Amino acid sequence: MTPISTLHDEFRGRLIDAGLLIPAGIPGLYARGAGFERVLDAVDGLIIREGADAGELTPGGSGYQLYRFPPVFPRDLYEKTDYIESFPDLTGVVNTFTGTSADHRALLADRAAERPWDHHLSPGDTVMVSSACHPLYGTLPNPLPEGGIAAEVNGYCFRHEPSADPMRMQSFRMHEYVRVGTPVEAAEFRTAWVDRAVRLLAGLGLEVEAVAANDPFFGRAGRLLANEQLANDLKTEIVVHVYGEDHPADAIASCNLAEDHFGRNFGLTLADGSVAHSSCVGFGLERITLALLGVHGLDPQQWPAEVRESLFP
Amino acid sequence: MTPISTLHDEFRGRLIDAGLLIPAGIPGLYARGAGFERVLDAVDGLIIREGADAGELTPGGSGYQLYRFPPVFPRDLYEKTDYIESFPDLTGVVNTFTGTSADHRALLADRAAERPWDHHLSPGDTVMVSSACHPLYGTLPNPLPEGGIAAEVNGYCFRHEPSADPMRMQSFRMHEYVRVGTPVEAAEFRTAWVDRAVRLLAGLGLEVEAVAANDPFFGRAGRLLANEQLANDLKTEIVVHVYGEDHPADAIASCNLAEDHFGRNFGLTLADGSVAHSSCVGFGLERITLALLGVHGLDPQQWPAEVRESLFP
Repeated sequence: MTPISTLHDEFRGRLIDAGLLIPAGIPGLYARGAGFERVLDAVDGLIIREGADAGELTPGGSGYQLYRFPPVFPRDLYEKTDYIESFPDLTGVVNTFTGTSADHRALLADRAAERPWDHHLSPGDTVMVSSACHPLYGTLPNPLPEGGIAAEVNGYCFRHEPSADPMRMQSFRMHEYVRVGTPVEAAEFRTAWVDRAVRLLAGLGLEVEAVAANDPFFGRAGRLLANEQLANDLKTEIVVHVYGEDHPADAIASCNLAEDHFGRNFGLTLADGSVAHSSCVGFGLERITLALLGVHGLDPQQWPAEVRESLFP
Repeated sequence: MTPISTLHDEFRGRLIDAGLLIPAGIPGLYARGAGFERVLDAVDGLIIREGADAGELTPGGSGYQLYRFPPVFPRDLYEKTDYIESFPDLTGVVNTFTGTSADHRALLADRAAERPWDHHLSPGDTVMVSSACHPLYGTLPNPLPEGGIAAEVNGYCFRHEPSADPMRMQSFRMHEYVRVGTPVEAAEFRTAWVDRAVRLLAGLGLEVEAVAANDPFFGRAGRLLANEQLANDLKTEIVVHVYGEDHPADAIASCNLAEDHFGRNFGLTLADGSVAHSSCVGFGLERITLALLGVHGLDPQQWPAEVRESLFP
């Protein structure tokens, strides 16, 4: 059996040779070439059409409200997600320089002498967005309007996990649909979107499967959290074998029931005063694009006709 | 005369009321709403068509090669830009947690006691992208191919400058065309793109002007650098009065001659062994979108017919 690291190197090498990805200098960071972006934009377009079609899952069928967040969000909202508790190793906190000209000269002197200079910086007021929906909860009206909220969120996510596997990038785009409402609304939304996501991705010729999953919580305490998440069926991943049946499948989308986690932490209440529940479905745009390139080959002109018709209508 | 801060508040308030921007929690950070993105995407499309039309400014007329970079790039490439020397206050260095479970418990204990916890983090290997073209130079082949390089770069930029002025965001998208070649090729590219950018933006009904400009270099030494940049005519900004003739105009695009700065720092040589020169034109996508909304009103349906035809052909 070919070791998975060999398959990673081989797939990454082919993507680079074809100009689809351009290595940006460290593991897990790439510029995307024109051919890659053409497929990714088409995947994104398909997800947007699916979202429009899924308007019945929004309050009063009114459709999703779009929020396109920048790749950083305020530190005090990041604090409320408890991400530093669960995923410290994936976190990216932004530091900057707030000193005087004299402080700056001291920084440059250290730098010129090839000494560390980070101690001249201070924690800034922003943190990298880790999941596209994290910046959302702090911007919602409170109490929520009658019927709750249905949002479409699209943005860059950062996770500090350098890897030679092109499926595991440090910076990637995620397209999410999010529901904030009653416990029943949140749960039904998740269930309905599992079916939609499976159908959408299977329609692209990907042999996907919906599986119960857990997040990669940090450390020993993290194992308990992961078991709890599995036991309570809070996370469903849509996975596909990009490296063949002999190797683990990769998640390309995930449907998550957050229960009252964000409602509690962000103090979000429903019109009746109860704590809001939430759920979301996230499509990993780079991962879906890579899965298509891996399964159908690097030249979209050669893909099965029905896949091409779905993506480039 | 209305104070500029009042005009900032008033414009920002109208953008928020119309759902075009959604405040993300701190000054200068916003989610973009659907109406905003529709205009921004149309502006981007127009810039892409202009770039295709400007193919004669690329080696052998072969067209621009697209690089879509993520919002962070490697720290050792950031070091080579000398940005920390010129713009430390705008910088965003990414920190992360690389410790053990015990270190993590110590972090969480500090956090639970509401003490600072950043000292448990370490400098990561990425830095926020400050100008869309900065990640490019470290990825180029060296020596450069015959005729040099012409690239199209599109991505998020970060600048730590919290502001109540919606024209000054901390995180925004920039679409650039970049030329790396001989001194003459770089200079001619800049000159040609000044004309193109003025024509393109004037065609959108914006009363733009091309003016000699300087970057906001930090500190007292920075004033010398700014004067030198002005004296050597290295930066041309395309500006427009968004807040009326009584107030300073805002730059919505800039054309920059970097001379051999990036060539020297990244060790880039031409086929003949000489140090490469470079120049670039950057379009600020949020700023152009905001200028259109400010000048023509918040409802694109009501914009002049020729502007609508240019943007939504």
